[in-house]
Amino acid sequence: MIDNFINNTSSWLRADGPNPDIVISSRVRLARNLSGLSFSHMDNEADMKKVVELVLDSISKSSLLENYHKIDIDRLSNIDKLFLVEKRLISPEQTRGSNKYAAVNQDESVSIMINEEDHIRLQVVLSGLQLGKAWETADSVDNELEKNLSYAFSEEWGYLTSCLTNTGTGLRASVMLHLAGLVITKQINKILQAVSQLGLAIRGIYGEGTEALGNIFQISNQVTLGGKEADIISNISRLCEQLVEHEKNARDTLMNDSKDYIEDKIFRAYGIFKNARIISTIETIELLSDIRLGLSMGVLKDLSLYQLNKLFIITQPAYLQMLEGHEINSKLRDIKRADIIRQTLAGTE
Amino acid sequence: MIDNFINNTSSWLRADGPNPDIVISSRVRLARNLSGLSFSHMDNEADMKKVVELVLDSISKSSLLENYHKIDIDRLSNIDKLFLVEKRLISPEQTRGSNKYAAVNQDESVSIMINEEDHIRLQVVLSGLQLGKAWETADSVDNELEKNLSYAFSEEWGYLTSCLTNTGTGLRASVMLHLAGLVITKQINKILQAVSQLGLAIRGIYGEGTEALGNIFQISNQVTLGGKEADIISNISRLCEQLVEHEKNARDTLMNDSKDYIEDKIFRAYGIFKNARIISTIETIELLSDIRLGLSMGVLKDLSLYQLNKLFIITQPAYLQMLEGHEINSKLRDIKRADIIRQTLAGTE
Repeated sequence: MIDNFINNTSSWLRADGPNPDIVISSRVRLARNLSGLSFSHMDNEADMKKVVELVLDSISKSSLLENYHKIDIDRLSNIDKLFLVEKRLISPEQTRGSNKYAAVNQDESVSIMINEEDHIRLQVVLSGLQLGKAWETADSVDNELEKNLSYAFSEEWGYLTSCLTNTGTGLRASVMLHLAGLVITKQINKILQAVSQLGLAIRGIYGEGTEALGNIFQISNQVTLGGKEADIISNISRLCEQLVEHEKNARDTLMNDSKDYIEDKIFRAYGIFKNARIISTIETIELLSDIRLGLSMGVLKDLSLYQLNKLFIITQPAYLQMLEGHEINSKLRDIKRADIIRQTLAGTE
Repeated sequence: MIDNFINNTSSWLRADGPNPDIVISSRVRLARNLSGLSFSHMDNEADMKKVVELVLDSISKSSLLENYHKIDIDRLSNIDKLFLVEKRLISPEQTRGSNKYAAVNQDESVSIMINEEDHIRLQVVLSGLQLGKAWETADSVDNELEKNLSYAFSEEWGYLTSCLTNTGTGLRASVMLHLAGLVITKQINKILQAVSQLGLAIRGIYGEGTEALGNIFQISNQVTLGGKEADIISNISRLCEQLVEHEKNARDTLMNDSKDYIEDKIFRAYGIFKNARIISTIETIELLSDIRLGLSMGVLKDLSLYQLNKLFIITQPAYLQMLEGHEINSKLRDIKRADIIRQTLAGTE
């Protein structure tokens, strides 16, 4: 049922957006609910079924959306669900409970989640720093959906949502950045402090509460209420452009002041990555950070960002098991992961 | 003056002796003193000069020894002296004080040190486990020297020496073994305990007081008095044959029970070794241990023991500086060392 997702590479992994060596992806998410149906706590089974019916119907009626791949999440195995989470096609929230659906477009840049925390969570993820384009896409899909749906909307508050933190625009914009240079040159804390003073949230790659594994940071707006969508988007975009500049400067500093040190760090990571026979998810992400930095700084040459992005995803636990075709335990996954990395890097020097 | 030693590979490094993957080298050393000259504490300058004169004269008069390369150690720079120590052609003791000479044969298997702790320290080092042959060679060189020298010898005590621990045979036989399998399988302590109960000494590679860096152990006799030379030699040889068997069994166990683990360990070491840009002497020796094990176990293939033995020597601090042609500081040595390792391993997979 979701086999076609295994060999398909999500467009955000293609590293063809602006500044893809520093900005991994730009994401826009809209929260929407249908008027007249319960959307608090999702405890009304009948209403949830009704939501699925109405949203799928709206998708089918749209010439823009009719080819979206519809996924009945309730019918998936746990590994299949986790696999979709790893691909960022659904949220972890979407794997719990029932009456869960998702509709995904061909290049996997757009995902419409049904009965997530809200009736509809519409998400667009693009490669590199292109939050504006992600917002435009989300807006157009949202308009398509709305043609055959009646959203819960208040003139005073804006879009109404299950959780108040999303009320208003219902918009969450987030950008995933690889800030290894700022971490290694120990400038990151100062930078992160400045970012949080602007009212933006900073998190590790796996959402709240996790540290910045692999030097990957996710920056997003905390406030959805009281601003215009375009302002939220342009504020974060501008900030991210500044972060990209800071990161580039940090990388230049490393190359100018600590060339031997940074080359040693990068090549050691590459040497281990290319040779290990057992490797955990966490070590993979940590090594990928140094290797990505090395590629961006021109220290490593035979690789591509696309390869590294792809490795980032296909070495995740569920993806590995999808590739293997059946469930395998953690110890065997660590071996399989090392196999896949070596296969991918074979021939590089 | 010692330039010809730079490109010359000592015969013990050639890995052409028996069991060269486990036994790196077999060494026999004889302590001898000349009768009628002071040999306690080397405090008599005139006698020391006389010793140099007499021994060099005896070497020149022997058709077997006349082609030995004679080295006036007093005239060497500190780096040159350390370089000869790293090559095991002279002892650290031989680099201190004055009136120090050495005579070394073409393949660097025999070294005659003059005015070391004793008037003469005659050493033979061969590849692999061949203590018997080392003893025969030492004995024949000793006989040559004695043709034109009068040794201090007592019917009751045997050869008289500066330090009582060498009196009697004046013989120290030592074998350098790479026991990585026994270390990794945690059998080494039991083994070492058994060895020391046999009255043998066990030390790390850099002599007394150092730990077993790189899993390399040196086993030697503690007692020089009261036994026949042939008995000392055959006792240590037999013991080493047993150690070789134990080590082989440990390696088989690793391959049978922990194949993934040991392959991962070996390939990671190889990956770092082949890619690092900065590397210390100690890390080099530690990584060489895993790589040597990998080669011996058939996990790594494109390398040779000879290459690894050579790397072991040419990555030492003084050797590096000899190759560079001038003194370089520790930081630059770590970079130069990594360069040399990469050059040596280029083309291996």
